[in-house]
Amino acid sequence: MAELSDDTTLTDPAHRAAAVDLIAVIAYGELSAFERLVDDARLAPALADRLALEAMAVTQFACVKPLLDRLETLGAEPISALEPFEIAFDAFHAQTAPMDYLEGLVKAFVGDALAADFYREVATFLDEDTRTLIGDSLDRAGQTDFIVDRVRAAIVENPSVAGRLALWARRLMGEALAQAQRVAAERDALMMLLTGTPFRDGLGLAEIGEMFARMTELHKARMAALGLEP
Amino acid sequence: MAELSDDTTLTDPAHRAAAVDLIAVIAYGELSAFERLVDDARLAPALADRLALEAMAVTQFACVKPLLDRLETLGAEPISALEPFEIAFDAFHAQTAPMDYLEGLVKAFVGDALAADFYREVATFLDEDTRTLIGDSLDRAGQTDFIVDRVRAAIVENPSVAGRLALWARRLMGEALAQAQRVAAERDALMMLLTGTPFRDGLGLAEIGEMFARMTELHKARMAALGLEP
Repeated sequence: MAELSDDTTLTDPAHRAAAVDLIAVIAYGELSAFERLVDDARLAPALADRLALEAMAVTQFACVKPLLDRLETLGAEPISALEPFEIAFDAFHAQTAPMDYLEGLVKAFVGDALAADFYREVATFLDEDTRTLIGDSLDRAGQTDFIVDRVRAAIVENPSVAGRLALWARRLMGEALAQAQRVAAERDALMMLLTGTPFRDGLGLAEIGEMFARMTELHKARMAALGLEP
Repeated sequence: MAELSDDTTLTDPAHRAAAVDLIAVIAYGELSAFERLVDDARLAPALADRLALEAMAVTQFACVKPLLDRLETLGAEPISALEPFEIAFDAFHAQTAPMDYLEGLVKAFVGDALAADFYREVATFLDEDTRTLIGDSLDRAGQTDFIVDRVRAAIVENPSVAGRLALWARRLMGEALAQAQRVAAERDALMMLLTGTPFRDGLGLAEIGEMFARMTELHKARMAALGLEP
């Protein structure tokens, strides 16, 4: 797998287009995660939990601005760059509106992290500056210890919720993959990052398999942290 | 009107209870304004406006933490201190859900500022530290130039909206007063700040009149800034 670590790669229009798309999809993803988390916080049974979820949401919102700035540096108009991703994220959230507080917590924990893993994988094909910015942004967004505590406590109190939440997490993963495929099908530049171009090798089948294996391991570890079957 | 500027007043239980109530009502107000503004941002016709409103909302959320910290310093449990104010704010927002983006903008501009004026007036009866904290918090929350631009532009484009928005602003004021009366009736400590106790003079009828006159002038100035009849 050919990593690019040289900023001059940004003079390549295909690389630049892919960097813009990846930064934009992350920025829109953070924005939309922020909005939904503020919605879902209203499901919290107590004001303290509502505040904690909203504080998480606000941290995600804070990631958006540096990404928009980077889009400008790359010569893209930030708002136009984000717009192509509205439909996929809105569809994802419409399909995965949590029925209760616990589903909201699992969504915030599993869904956002799954997206983050994918972005990190794709970012390895981009220049170092973009990669660092994306890594920082995703690291900051994930302060989730309190979610693990809440979900584990709920399972201790009522073990039967574990099955329902495990199913819910699988549904989240299914919807996320469906929307990721939609985005990949519509955004050539992103797709070519993975599959290569006539001038640059992409991932072989084995490497794509390895990427999904890595993501699956991380997902399993998160499910285990919550006390859920993967 | 007897201003208190000495921190030792906090050893007076009635003063302390009033300070806790006032800080708590502002904190819950900011929190609930944050949530509703994130909701209302979804009404924005363009992503740039949605982002601008959400950035405003996040600024309001940032005001909450210092207020909660101050409640702890005063020996109050912050979450319990906020809870008595949930009903009034939730009722206000339920009664004033904007029908469209412009109503949302006017609500963010007129409603929040009206509340802020009232808090500032009441804060003059409290110790200097509390007063400064409240002033800082309310100043930070109000970055609203972009709302003025948007509403004025909408009126230029379609002058007939001015009448509808002026009526809407009057309704917002009516609902805000109704909920303020509910809070005052339920929270003795806050009420006594205004009306006095056997040991301290409160406001006379003339002074209460002056307070409302000041608030009305500020409200009129804001309506004029938006290009609306008060």
